[in-house]
Amino acid sequence: MKFATLRDGTRDGQLLVVSRDGQRAVKATNISPTLQAALENWDAVVGDLQKLSDALNAGQAEGAFDVDVDQLEAPLPRAYQWLDGSAYLNHVELVRKARGATVPESFYDDPLMYQGGSDTFIGPTQDIAHKTEDWGIDFEGEIAIVTGDVPYQTSQEEAGQYVRLLMLVNDVSLRGLIPSELAKSFGFVVSKPPTVFSPFAVTPDELGDSWRDGKVWLPLEVSYNNEFFGNPDAGPEMVFSFHRLIAHVARTRPLGAGTIIGSGTVSNKDRSKGSCCLAEKRMIEKIDTGEFVTPFMKFGDRVRIEMKKDGQSIFGAIDQKVVKWDG
Amino acid sequence: MKFATLRDGTRDGQLLVVSRDGQRAVKATNISPTLQAALENWDAVVGDLQKLSDALNAGQAEGAFDVDVDQLEAPLPRAYQWLDGSAYLNHVELVRKARGATVPESFYDDPLMYQGGSDTFIGPTQDIAHKTEDWGIDFEGEIAIVTGDVPYQTSQEEAGQYVRLLMLVNDVSLRGLIPSELAKSFGFVVSKPPTVFSPFAVTPDELGDSWRDGKVWLPLEVSYNNEFFGNPDAGPEMVFSFHRLIAHVARTRPLGAGTIIGSGTVSNKDRSKGSCCLAEKRMIEKIDTGEFVTPFMKFGDRVRIEMKKDGQSIFGAIDQKVVKWDG
Repeated sequence: MKFATLRDGTRDGQLLVVSRDGQRAVKATNISPTLQAALENWDAVVGDLQKLSDALNAGQAEGAFDVDVDQLEAPLPRAYQWLDGSAYLNHVELVRKARGATVPESFYDDPLMYQGGSDTFIGPTQDIAHKTEDWGIDFEGEIAIVTGDVPYQTSQEEAGQYVRLLMLVNDVSLRGLIPSELAKSFGFVVSKPPTVFSPFAVTPDELGDSWRDGKVWLPLEVSYNNEFFGNPDAGPEMVFSFHRLIAHVARTRPLGAGTIIGSGTVSNKDRSKGSCCLAEKRMIEKIDTGEFVTPFMKFGDRVRIEMKKDGQSIFGAIDQKVVKWDG
Repeated sequence: MKFATLRDGTRDGQLLVVSRDGQRAVKATNISPTLQAALENWDAVVGDLQKLSDALNAGQAEGAFDVDVDQLEAPLPRAYQWLDGSAYLNHVELVRKARGATVPESFYDDPLMYQGGSDTFIGPTQDIAHKTEDWGIDFEGEIAIVTGDVPYQTSQEEAGQYVRLLMLVNDVSLRGLIPSELAKSFGFVVSKPPTVFSPFAVTPDELGDSWRDGKVWLPLEVSYNNEFFGNPDAGPEMVFSFHRLIAHVARTRPLGAGTIIGSGTVSNKDRSKGSCCLAEKRMIEKIDTGEFVTPFMKFGDRVRIEMKKDGQSIFGAIDQKVVKWDG
């Protein structure tokens, strides 16, 4: 199944079921008003949602309409929890190498993860508006899961049963504000403004055999100002699977239904695969030439993040530009 | 006004209005089903809530009943955002001094703040259940505000109008898990299990002239295993006011209604005022004697956190014990 959230002026929007090809949608609000509500009552609603999805895919859903991505919010316009891992250690290695540091051994055994702000997310084609370019605005292409209720002390082996949905992420970062926050060790607050999610959140079965072992084995396609920027494979170099990331945080607390967990910036060692954020490209430039060359985003710059299977877009595309905040 | 949330088996409970003396309550669900909903529709519901509160305080509210604190959830049983500052720098100075380090100058100008997990909070008298005492279970007595919708780029001078409610906090910490998380610089995830809030969330006017300049000018009373542990004044040594903390995070993002912002562990330089967490007491022991003496919490240990004005408990008491998780 694919889900989306229709903007309607409320804080949580209206739940839509979307066809496999991403072209048609139908309101599912008579089953569950919102995606958050569906996640909280999953066992009770999943059967009816599946029937509606099947009818839509068969062209037989009453009230179906063409998807207009610009009318979509993030699948969860806000959430009770957004945790972001950093599971592609190649990215971490490049960041460290560029500043002449090595990666501590513990990083290969103990996942990096930060708690993100989840009260306000940005829709897939909404502008990213900020006061100044001087903050070093960057995109980060990632994958995320959405969980059901996860019990305290859930193990990696048990975690798979709690993965309800997958989405793509643009984890917008303000690079110029990160060093002073990292120096304080308390994580990212000011340097991570509202995060962006793909048009559709999909159940794992939509990925077929490309969802295995708690990882997505497909390339993440990132373009920047309409040019190729990266297409690293999200599977082979994900050091910590989503199952491992769930277990990492469930060690000391339960997770509420609707918890979002991100993969961190997807990254491959093969340089021909490009990158999923400007910072990584800059790190490679620094390592190779001693200089940062590529600037961070300027007002008007666009990023597009998408993932396809057999030529078909799975999550729809995050496709948005950075603009000057006009408040 | 004072609000509380009655446990009813749902995720968000039922909104109660509580009398000024904390003894009587009445359901406010015909005005707003939950406290979160009230915060989202504040201007539309505040008048009716005030009328109900006035009637309750006059002994004239229909359906009023005696408060049973054990039936109360946290005022917000879950929230879309929980940000915790560290505004009492005496606490930070002691932590640093105990390990022979100094406090960077920037700490006096740039607030420390971390993003906390907000999907699952613990009620004021609920047990804190964990798998092992070996994690170094500690309490932290704090004050928190709850905001309405705060616009992007709200300044310190503008911030006061968005403070809707105040609460007390027990920011439970797993001290043994903190060093490895701090070393990774990504903030607290595993080392900060679910947080605890006071029975009542109150509007600022309930504090009278003890709420000034975005600070609470009253002692926070902490007892541990029924003995005095600390009663530092929360006003004079709060280096960053709540208004400043709002502006700090609103610099790069708006805050959604129902955002909770904590003060950090309340702390005074005057040692006769005691402490609001075991870690601080241990730091003082280490500075004075070279040794940590007081252990962290053992299963069965109790903490009580309360604040009074003119002898009257404002928020009700957090009063709970640590137990072994029996999952």
